[in-house]
Amino acid sequence: MTILVSGGAGYIGSHTVLYLQQQNEDVIVLDNLSKGHRGALCNLKFYEGDLTNTALLDKVFQENKINAIIHFAASSLVGESMEKPLDYYENNVLGTFHLVKKAVEYNVNNIVFSSTAATYGEPKNIPILETDPTIPTNPYGETKLAIEKMLKWSHEAYGLNSICLRYFNAAGADPEGRIGEDHTPETHLIPIVLEAALGQRDGVKIFGDDYPTLDGTCIRDYIHVFDLAQAHYLAVQKLISDGGCDVFNLGNGQGFSVKEVIDTCRKVTQKEIKAEVSPRRGGDPAQLIASAEKAHNKLGWKPQYDSLETIVQHAWNWHSTHEEGYE
Amino acid sequence: MTILVSGGAGYIGSHTVLYLQQQNEDVIVLDNLSKGHRGALCNLKFYEGDLTNTALLDKVFQENKINAIIHFAASSLVGESMEKPLDYYENNVLGTFHLVKKAVEYNVNNIVFSSTAATYGEPKNIPILETDPTIPTNPYGETKLAIEKMLKWSHEAYGLNSICLRYFNAAGADPEGRIGEDHTPETHLIPIVLEAALGQRDGVKIFGDDYPTLDGTCIRDYIHVFDLAQAHYLAVQKLISDGGCDVFNLGNGQGFSVKEVIDTCRKVTQKEIKAEVSPRRGGDPAQLIASAEKAHNKLGWKPQYDSLETIVQHAWNWHSTHEEGYE
Repeated sequence: MTILVSGGAGYIGSHTVLYLQQQNEDVIVLDNLSKGHRGALCNLKFYEGDLTNTALLDKVFQENKINAIIHFAASSLVGESMEKPLDYYENNVLGTFHLVKKAVEYNVNNIVFSSTAATYGEPKNIPILETDPTIPTNPYGETKLAIEKMLKWSHEAYGLNSICLRYFNAAGADPEGRIGEDHTPETHLIPIVLEAALGQRDGVKIFGDDYPTLDGTCIRDYIHVFDLAQAHYLAVQKLISDGGCDVFNLGNGQGFSVKEVIDTCRKVTQKEIKAEVSPRRGGDPAQLIASAEKAHNKLGWKPQYDSLETIVQHAWNWHSTHEEGYE
Repeated sequence: MTILVSGGAGYIGSHTVLYLQQQNEDVIVLDNLSKGHRGALCNLKFYEGDLTNTALLDKVFQENKINAIIHFAASSLVGESMEKPLDYYENNVLGTFHLVKKAVEYNVNNIVFSSTAATYGEPKNIPILETDPTIPTNPYGETKLAIEKMLKWSHEAYGLNSICLRYFNAAGADPEGRIGEDHTPETHLIPIVLEAALGQRDGVKIFGDDYPTLDGTCIRDYIHVFDLAQAHYLAVQKLISDGGCDVFNLGNGQGFSVKEVIDTCRKVTQKEIKAEVSPRRGGDPAQLIASAEKAHNKLGWKPQYDSLETIVQHAWNWHSTHEEGYE
C-alpha cells in the first residue's frame, strides 16, 4: 500500500511512519515542519508544506497513487488553543477541510484521523466509552470534534471511509531507540520528568495532590506510541477491507497517577528527581481512563508495551542519548 | 451605528436590513448574490463578494467604521447539505472563520450570528430550550453548531461578543410589501402554498398525515421575518451595551400544522389550493416548537406579528404582486 501521512514528522506521526515502514508499506509524508522534525524520517518521499496549500495537495495526489491517508497534522496544545482558538480552527478544521476535499476529488477513500480524548471534555463515566457525551472544554478538543463530524457527513455523502482514533496520553519512544519525543514547548509529563532526571530542569511540579484518587494525584491513561502506531495501521487495513465510518478510543485501559509516573522515572533512570506539590490547575479532571474494548474487539488491537516501566524505559533510552532532542 | 450585514441580500438578511434602515442605522451589505437579490436592497453601501475573499474583507473593514456585524451569509438547504457537506463546511465554517478573524483583527467586537433550530436535531423536549442537547441530523445544522462553538471560544480568547439566534421557520414578508421571499429552489411551505394559489404549481403535497398531532400533519413554529429582524436589532443593542456571549431561540412559542397553514392560505388568498397527502419524508420530526422565553426576558423581544393569518397575509401581499419574485 501507499499511505500518505500528514504531520508525519511529529511525535506520533514519525513513530507511525517508522512502524509502517517496518511493515514494508510505502509511506509519503506531508508536514510543514512547524513542530515536526525532518530528522525523524528517512527513506521516504517528503513534501514540506501546509494543508491549506491546495496546489501542493494537488501535486501530492497527482504524483502518487495513494491508498489511504493517516491524518496527524494539527495544532495540539490545549493551553495555546485557549489563547488562540482561531489558529486552531485554521490549522485543524480548515487544514483538514482542504485535505478531505482533495481526497474526495482524487478518489482516495480511506482516512484515519488522529482525534483525541479531549473530544469528551470532563468525563461523566470512567472508563470512558466511545458512546459517552462529547463536550470539549477547550478549542483543541472542539476542533478535533468538528473534524470528526465533517468526516461522518463526508462518509454519508461521498463514501469517504474514515476511522477516528481518540487517544489518551501518548508516551514512550521507538523500542529500538531510533526516534523519540521532542516537543517545544514540552507539555507532556514523562519527558518533563526525564528532563529533570537529566538536570535540564530543577524538578517537576505536581499540580494538586488532593484529588479523590489513591495517592491524591491525577490519573491518566498512558499508551505506548508504538502501540498507537499499530492501531493506525490496523485502522487502515480495516478501512480497506470493510470501509465504513467509526470512532475508537485508544488507551491502556488502566491509569497511572502522576506520583506513579515520577516514581517509575526515578526507578528507570536511577536519578534523584525533585518533585514539588503545587495547587491544582483549572480544568484537570481527577481521572481520565479510556475503555479500549471496542478497538480490541473490532480492530484486533493488542497493545504490546503496556507496562509503565517499559514506556518510561523506551522514552529514557532516547532522551538519555539525545539530550538536545533532534537538534 | 454602522452595521455590517453579511448575506444581507437574502430573505431574512434583506428584511433585517430594511428594519435597521427604518431605525435610522447605517447599513453596509456584503453578499455574493449566489442566492440573494440585489433588488431587495436600496440606499446602502453594497459589496459583492465572498467571505473567503480576504482582500475584500480587508477593504470592507478599512473603508468603514463598523460597530457590529450581523452574519447571515451561509448555505442553508438541508437536503443539499446532505449531498454536498463539504460545500457547507466551506461556505459556512470557512466563510465565518475568515469573517471572525477579520473582525478580531479590526477590533469589531460584536457579532450576531444567524444560527438555526437545526442545531438541536431531533428534539428531546417540546418546547425546545436553549439548554437542550444539540445533536444535528444534517450537515447544515452541524456547520451552524460548529460556528456557534467557534464564536464561544473567540469570546473567551479575544473578547469578541456574540449572540447566536436559533431560528425556527421564518415566514411572511415586509408588512409594507416592499420586499418578500424569493428562493430558488423554494423549499419553504408558505411560499410553496402561495405559488399553488397563483397557479404556478398544480397543488401542494402534505408529507404524512399520520403524525401524533391533532390533525396528523407536522407542526412547525412559524415566526414573522420582521419579528426576526427586530430580534437581530435587539441583539446588536444588547451586545453593545452588555457584551457577552449567548444563544437564543427565536420562535413563536406556538406551532401550526401543515393543514392549518394550507387552510389559512386558502382563507387569505380566497383561492382553491389542491393538497395531496404523500408518505412521510425521512427526518421530519412531528413537532418543532421553540421556547422563546429567554429572548423575551433577556432581549426584551416581543413579536408583533404572531398570528398565522397576518404572516400569510404579508407573504401574499408580496407574492401576489411579484409573481416572478425579484426577476
